[in-house]
Amino acid sequence: MKCRRCREPAIIELRRHNAGFCRDCFVRHCREQVRRAIDEFSMMQPGEHVLVAVSGGKDSLGLWHLLRELGYDADGLYVGLGIGDYSESSASYARAFAHEHGAQLLEIDLVDTYGFDIPEGSLAARRVPCSACGLSKRHVFNEAAMTHGYDVLATGHNLDDEAAVLFGNVLRWQTEYLGRQHPVLPAAPGFVRKVKPLIRLGERELAAYCVVHGIDYIVEECPMAEGNRHLGYKEALNAIEERSPGTKAAFVSTFLERVHSRFVDEATGVRDDLRPCTTCGSPTPPSAAGVCAFCRIRARATGATIPVTAS
Amino acid sequence: MKCRRCREPAIIELRRHNAGFCRDCFVRHCREQVRRAIDEFSMMQPGEHVLVAVSGGKDSLGLWHLLRELGYDADGLYVGLGIGDYSESSASYARAFAHEHGAQLLEIDLVDTYGFDIPEGSLAARRVPCSACGLSKRHVFNEAAMTHGYDVLATGHNLDDEAAVLFGNVLRWQTEYLGRQHPVLPAAPGFVRKVKPLIRLGERELAAYCVVHGIDYIVEECPMAEGNRHLGYKEALNAIEERSPGTKAAFVSTFLERVHSRFVDEATGVRDDLRPCTTCGSPTPPSAAGVCAFCRIRARATGATIPVTAS
Repeated sequence: MKCRRCREPAIIELRRHNAGFCRDCFVRHCREQVRRAIDEFSMMQPGEHVLVAVSGGKDSLGLWHLLRELGYDADGLYVGLGIGDYSESSASYARAFAHEHGAQLLEIDLVDTYGFDIPEGSLAARRVPCSACGLSKRHVFNEAAMTHGYDVLATGHNLDDEAAVLFGNVLRWQTEYLGRQHPVLPAAPGFVRKVKPLIRLGERELAAYCVVHGIDYIVEECPMAEGNRHLGYKEALNAIEERSPGTKAAFVSTFLERVHSRFVDEATGVRDDLRPCTTCGSPTPPSAAGVCAFCRIRARATGATIPVTAS
Repeated sequence: MKCRRCREPAIIELRRHNAGFCRDCFVRHCREQVRRAIDEFSMMQPGEHVLVAVSGGKDSLGLWHLLRELGYDADGLYVGLGIGDYSESSASYARAFAHEHGAQLLEIDLVDTYGFDIPEGSLAARRVPCSACGLSKRHVFNEAAMTHGYDVLATGHNLDDEAAVLFGNVLRWQTEYLGRQHPVLPAAPGFVRKVKPLIRLGERELAAYCVVHGIDYIVEECPMAEGNRHLGYKEALNAIEERSPGTKAAFVSTFLERVHSRFVDEATGVRDDLRPCTTCGSPTPPSAAGVCAFCRIRARATGATIPVTAS
């Protein structure tokens, strides 16, 4: 197979694009897809101060590299979740990348800063680990970006992630989540702008991008994620993509073009109703009686009293 | 395992309902689900003249039996599609059911009446067989019901079918199809009312219902359907249902409750624009230049000229 652009031997075939690419044209393709995603959704402007949430995996390290290549002023944020060896190992990949590329890495350790780790938080809150972890990361990412004055927080959600999340939201028709599922969540009081510049790249492309650039990343899945629903949705979509390449990309892009707006009112309504958490000041829905979900988990995990106020 | 209702030994477990049923309570369950579907969506009234489209398979024969048990005046309609031995065999099951139950079976043979069969139509129209077949059946079912003065046409689409079709429509976000995906399509000029009373029953339940009643049905899939997308969607949903029983039922019912209405304008708009086909009089979109898709297939397959008129 030859490269679609330059006719040199291809190193990767992308069935969704019905094309092969050589090393250089593949790198150009990845950069171009990120540039187009940023432009299409007006994710950020040159000169803005970007914080990239990095886990040590291929997606977030690849994103960090791509944003720096595209000329963005992008620092990394690593949150230590306290998931044993997995966290130790993933931190070392993030640090190695920062060191090698002369990039700035902000580190926040959940135990040191908030007094609990994900296994404890998950048990205490009686939530599945991925739920406790997701909400904790959202909270810490946002707080860190706000505290340190970043303009925008970028996360490494790729096309496969977005398709799987969309599939899960669609299977249960979670209309509020569908209204919020967008590659840009604009800034709002208490919220930094959040963007997903990898929405046009699949996980296989990110893995290849890292290999091509000699970026070492943690290959293992998080041990606490085993058997979670999200992975089941990915498998189901992969089977369909295998038969009909391009299905995932069309699923996500057509949703954004033609369907997302039909659900946006529900998400906006929820956002408008938020009030500051009485403990940490984060925006919190009125149903939470004043205390945000993160502070609840933290209080349960650390044995502190939850200071519930009349809402 | 014991029957949830009467504590006798169960003959079937329905994980989606977290219940087992004995023979009698299972039959009652099936009847009850059909009764509830008919009521919930006001599908039909007692005394109406119902035409059931029967293929010789478990769903349509089960439906025919269930509607008669529920006291509806239901005749059968069998359309001979000319798919070799498969059509011969499926016709014999439909006839045997009618004979055994003293029910009226209307038969229409595609070749005798319209001059072509599905293999020819599919080739001539360069459509995949399931597409040519689906549109031909829709046309013939509607024409037969209108010609013979039936109030309503009932089809044997079950919960698994509806979930797979919904999944396909969602993957490509076919907004017009989503607006039309409903267990009742009301009557309109040129269209009989169409209903899907099996929307609350899965295919496993229909198979068991037929076995319990000694209803013989054709077990083979249509040989022309092999490898079609719909079957891929079913497999993907089955894998998810296996992990989380009830996912399919929630996917379909929540869509109908909370989402369908967001797409209904598109479907209504299309329906309002229909004009009579210049060949057969069936409602036809203006983009078809006067001739409906069925008459086009028929003309191509039989070598007749398509009488295109200025629209």
